[in-house]
Amino acid sequence: MSEVYANRRSRLRDHVNAAGTAAALVTRPANVRYLAAAAPQGSVLLLGRQEDLLVCAGPPDDRPHEGRPDEHVRLHILPVNGPGNGGDAAVAAAGLAAAQGADSLAVEEHHLTVARHRAVASVAPKLRLSDLGGAVEQLRVVKDEEEISCLRIGAEIADQALGELLESILVGRTERHLALELERRLVDHGADGPAFPTSVATGPHAGRRGHRPTDRRVEEGDFLSVCLGATYRGYRCEIGRTFVIGTSPADWQIELYDLVFAAQRAGREFLAPGAAYRDVDRAARQVLDSAGYAEALPPLIGHGVGLEIDEDPQLAPAAMGKLDACVPVTVEPGVHLPGRGGVRIDDTLVVRPEADGGPELLTITTKELLAL
Amino acid sequence: MSEVYANRRSRLRDHVNAAGTAAALVTRPANVRYLAAAAPQGSVLLLGRQEDLLVCAGPPDDRPHEGRPDEHVRLHILPVNGPGNGGDAAVAAAGLAAAQGADSLAVEEHHLTVARHRAVASVAPKLRLSDLGGAVEQLRVVKDEEEISCLRIGAEIADQALGELLESILVGRTERHLALELERRLVDHGADGPAFPTSVATGPHAGRRGHRPTDRRVEEGDFLSVCLGATYRGYRCEIGRTFVIGTSPADWQIELYDLVFAAQRAGREFLAPGAAYRDVDRAARQVLDSAGYAEALPPLIGHGVGLEIDEDPQLAPAAMGKLDACVPVTVEPGVHLPGRGGVRIDDTLVVRPEADGGPELLTITTKELLAL
Repeated sequence: MSEVYANRRSRLRDHVNAAGTAAALVTRPANVRYLAAAAPQGSVLLLGRQEDLLVCAGPPDDRPHEGRPDEHVRLHILPVNGPGNGGDAAVAAAGLAAAQGADSLAVEEHHLTVARHRAVASVAPKLRLSDLGGAVEQLRVVKDEEEISCLRIGAEIADQALGELLESILVGRTERHLALELERRLVDHGADGPAFPTSVATGPHAGRRGHRPTDRRVEEGDFLSVCLGATYRGYRCEIGRTFVIGTSPADWQIELYDLVFAAQRAGREFLAPGAAYRDVDRAARQVLDSAGYAEALPPLIGHGVGLEIDEDPQLAPAAMGKLDACVPVTVEPGVHLPGRGGVRIDDTLVVRPEADGGPELLTITTKELLAL
Repeated sequence: MSEVYANRRSRLRDHVNAAGTAAALVTRPANVRYLAAAAPQGSVLLLGRQEDLLVCAGPPDDRPHEGRPDEHVRLHILPVNGPGNGGDAAVAAAGLAAAQGADSLAVEEHHLTVARHRAVASVAPKLRLSDLGGAVEQLRVVKDEEEISCLRIGAEIADQALGELLESILVGRTERHLALELERRLVDHGADGPAFPTSVATGPHAGRRGHRPTDRRVEEGDFLSVCLGATYRGYRCEIGRTFVIGTSPADWQIELYDLVFAAQRAGREFLAPGAAYRDVDRAARQVLDSAGYAEALPPLIGHGVGLEIDEDPQLAPAAMGKLDACVPVTVEPGVHLPGRGGVRIDDTLVVRPEADGGPELLTITTKELLAL
């Protein structure tokens, strides 16, 4: 297992050295975890000239699902109220890089604040700072089978939690309570925790992307849209479904559901190695567009998932790039009609070549329109 | 109500203009909310030359406890995938500041990333960017009675949730389930949500600051330390208590508890307008220190609370400054003995002058050592 992390670090080191930089400072937590197997709170990873250091404000978290730091990374724990670095592991790491004899250091300018960047520069004035950019994020796009199996287990957990909710009485319960109930079930089934704040949207709220639960109660005739995900060993998946409350959906509900379902299927069917991100987006978007919902359309149709719930790639109109095999993405079109509600359908899938049976669906809860 | 926000903005505008800067860009969400009454996701506040703009990526959240934007702030909603600003409200706001004729803009360099700062600079090259620093955070330190009443209600909610948990069976339940149960009760009693991830620590984990719950189950003879808080209308409070599981605490448990209690009381009794932050810290710290726990001591004894759970002031050995009236702070000393566990006791109080009866205790759950 450990060589996985060593390989990731050596790929990054090659990238950094090819850019003429001696060392790299990784501060974004998901990037630290990807390269060092763990990212204790406040920790940073120094990819040094002589050795790799995980610089932490305190001892690593001992929760198993937080991961143990890779044994080839040396732990450096800051003294409490340590002098000079203001307790900032990034500042301490820059000092250590200079002490190792590095003359240049690549930092994550999309994550470091201006003030932190200044503190890093001032602790080691001889160090030439450059921008690491999204180099680690790019390494993270294509997953190995170990990572995918974590996503697969997380998706099973989310399917279980959602399935159990559907068997319970829903009418009269608030969005916030249903969301808390789902999050409890995620943990019951072995999730580290929710992958993101669980969204439960009823009636006029239904179909809104990222709707945060309110005290509105489920009523007969409502659309109910739910979006949840489990974190398993740090990996985050996502599933979204929309249901109708009561025995018989109204005609407009059936029509809207069928439309969003058709759009979501079109997006899923477009997933393949070599497919352009924007074409996947268009495949789903044009179904909604041609039905006259151009206004109600979301900014993107899907996105990558992994150690973060929203990673590269973005499946959006202006996105550049093509899918590779073993890239897990969501496909989540939705339509929200102000005042009336709407529909969202969201799956997590892994891009696979045709020869391997095409895209692998991780979230298997039915997408029929259920009346609950 | 609305003039409260107008007054806050005019105080900030005075500060900015006194520094010779025409306009200010506030990006830190809690700061945006403090000045504009609401901070929709991704929104920023432009304190402009002609008018104040709340620039949002989308329409404001309609959940009542998220607040409605102050009507004297003009809403500017970015077009989805808007050109030029990459969907970043901060970049759009900088362009609007320049369009208003501002020649200079103060930004929050402790919040803006290097990459975002660069994008802001490049959209309006004529704009001279300066550092707003922690100006808004400093305005936020002293609370008005409206803010304090939100904290008081949040504290009542946390007391209720904790009280109910103590009446239930604890032995055999895991830290994670107890934490989820507490968070559900917070919402039941009207909290917007938890103020921070609820910490439940049993046995050897007990007394660890910020311990994240694990699957360890409560056992007879354990110390059980719990730290939770409610968010009410955006305001966050904190309470921490430590209990013993079983009928009779061991002698070492009683001794350790009495020591931490004495330290916490010493800190509370030191709270007064004009008291130096570091002296409050020392008052509590030296009790633990003189008992030989210098090693086990936390980096700080307490901190401010408000729209964020960890605000200025820091009650720490190196902190500069003095308390004012109407500043809510925590007093939360603890001792953790590796392998054995420990004790934390944490209250939220509001600094009040002697004439008003001294510090106001918001979290009133008993601090006797309860055996559950």
